[in-house]
Amino acid sequence: MRVAIIGLGLIGGSWGLALREWSRSEEGKNSKLEIVGFDAKATQRNEAQKQGVCDRTTLTPMEAVVGAEVVIVATPPLVMRETFEDIAAHLSRGAIVTDTASTKREVLRWAKELLPDTISFIGGHPMAGKTASLEGATATLFNKCTYCLIPLPNAQAGAIEALTRLVEIVGGRPHFIDPAEHDSYVAAISHLPFLMSVALTNLTSESEGWREISKLAAGGYQDMTRLSGGSVTMHLDICRTNSDAILDWLDRYQQTLTDLRAVIEKAGLYDEEGRPRPSAETDPVLLQDYIERAHKARERWEEERARPPQIEGLEQINLPTKKELQAEYTRMFTGSWLKRRTPDNGKK
Amino acid sequence: MRVAIIGLGLIGGSWGLALREWSRSEEGKNSKLEIVGFDAKATQRNEAQKQGVCDRTTLTPMEAVVGAEVVIVATPPLVMRETFEDIAAHLSRGAIVTDTASTKREVLRWAKELLPDTISFIGGHPMAGKTASLEGATATLFNKCTYCLIPLPNAQAGAIEALTRLVEIVGGRPHFIDPAEHDSYVAAISHLPFLMSVALTNLTSESEGWREISKLAAGGYQDMTRLSGGSVTMHLDICRTNSDAILDWLDRYQQTLTDLRAVIEKAGLYDEEGRPRPSAETDPVLLQDYIERAHKARERWEEERARPPQIEGLEQINLPTKKELQAEYTRMFTGSWLKRRTPDNGKK
Repeated sequence: MRVAIIGLGLIGGSWGLALREWSRSEEGKNSKLEIVGFDAKATQRNEAQKQGVCDRTTLTPMEAVVGAEVVIVATPPLVMRETFEDIAAHLSRGAIVTDTASTKREVLRWAKELLPDTISFIGGHPMAGKTASLEGATATLFNKCTYCLIPLPNAQAGAIEALTRLVEIVGGRPHFIDPAEHDSYVAAISHLPFLMSVALTNLTSESEGWREISKLAAGGYQDMTRLSGGSVTMHLDICRTNSDAILDWLDRYQQTLTDLRAVIEKAGLYDEEGRPRPSAETDPVLLQDYIERAHKARERWEEERARPPQIEGLEQINLPTKKELQAEYTRMFTGSWLKRRTPDNGKK
Repeated sequence: MRVAIIGLGLIGGSWGLALREWSRSEEGKNSKLEIVGFDAKATQRNEAQKQGVCDRTTLTPMEAVVGAEVVIVATPPLVMRETFEDIAAHLSRGAIVTDTASTKREVLRWAKELLPDTISFIGGHPMAGKTASLEGATATLFNKCTYCLIPLPNAQAGAIEALTRLVEIVGGRPHFIDPAEHDSYVAAISHLPFLMSVALTNLTSESEGWREISKLAAGGYQDMTRLSGGSVTMHLDICRTNSDAILDWLDRYQQTLTDLRAVIEKAGLYDEEGRPRPSAETDPVLLQDYIERAHKARERWEEERARPPQIEGLEQINLPTKKELQAEYTRMFTGSWLKRRTPDNGKK
């Protein structure tokens, strides 16, 4: 099985390392895995090869995808469009192409517009990540992470199942989802938190007292500003390609803060000019309720996270039977797969 | 040296464990350290004694402070007022009394109003913390943390120096600061982040799609909601005793988000109805600048954090000479200190 990885950062690098590890296992040892890598930066290409992310690298994305059964595009979102343009004519018939971007509507639109009908495009998004560079890449990055998958309508059932299996191989929990829902949900739990983080960093670090304030900042501040240390390009692209969903959640968040403000005003022992208020005039009940609700919701979420994994959303997708798939996997992972999976298989 | 700790949670517990560790060191082994603990909950008292936080516990805060040279009040903020009322008549002359609350103006007001002139009150606030319970207590919690100290005007120089040394002994970096500045700065880097966190938790967990959204939430969401898992009582008291500073920073934060919103709107590839906008009509420059500023500020802050420690703000305080202090320490840490430090020393 030949896999091409375009973009050798945290996510691309971790895909390579995780597949490599699998290829040494009982199941993977007959896969004849070959990983071909491309990155626009020569230093990244060299580093990736040194780390064992790929067997060899190429000087163009076109060369990387030639003969590949699986193509993983892990570039920043806005680079994907031109990557699709570049590789479209060089993809093998029947190849599986996937991406790893944090926004999915735009990427699926580009894939539909630019990639040939002879391949299966299945959008992907691993809900993992910490730092944004190749140094952070590990074989276990996707371990137990929810891995969103969104096939284009013309993607072949066998290709969907094969990528599902690959996601499991690298440790992810495949999760099929609608692209608009994905983009809205991810705006809520990933993009809005990023914006909250950069806003806090800029507000505090550009405030008058920062020289003094910064000395007091500790663990809580570190947590809440961590996301602002992420990749500038990636987050800029995310904000641009998901602007409507992000603005929607940002508005809801502002409303939430406005509500919270009113509740604090009621409960506060000081008025806004810093004058003490008689305790009898204050009312802490609503604020206590607000904080308690959050406390409990946070606990419940952590509990749910600890539950055992399962594949979700697969019922929405028309798939071959278990038995057919078993045969499919065997072919794919022993190298004979690509030949059979071409859409016009048997005609030539 | 007898130390009383009132409130045996994360902070009180860590004080006990850190002092205990010091008492086994070369410097501390002659200190005849005795730690007396009180907590309103019997389970906490038992657990604290089992963990070695204190040598013995008492059934009232009054009993705990009798004969103590140092009293550390580590209860939730609003409990401090009644604790001061309770212990006032039982404090030894010349005792050092400190607290550990996250808001300082109110606590200092109570101390001035309720505690006798014969003791030295020095407000304290360690910029440390992760979980909120005794189980999280460790001897190293204060290691390298900025430890704010705010003496009342009548606090004796020797008492200030002695507490400064104790803070260093438990690993903290003493940091003298004005109470109003403290409360405003801490609102910016601790209380506002807490409110951001609870608002995000409630917004998302109470949204329609939460059942689905929650499955996608990962590391970023976990970081940004972590603070909402903290102690409800403590945070409620903090919000109430620092409401004016908190509302001021919340307003500034809302303004920052409003500015950021406009910048995203300019850069977005979608309009608010989700219709794609021609790329030429969008302008990513300001958004890129916004994200880059945060990225760099975050990097700079992390660099500054890594710098070696130093005592700050001490120059503002009238202190005895190094030589006098040396003698002071020796007396304090060998048990003869309390007798000499009484304000009317020599008169009787």
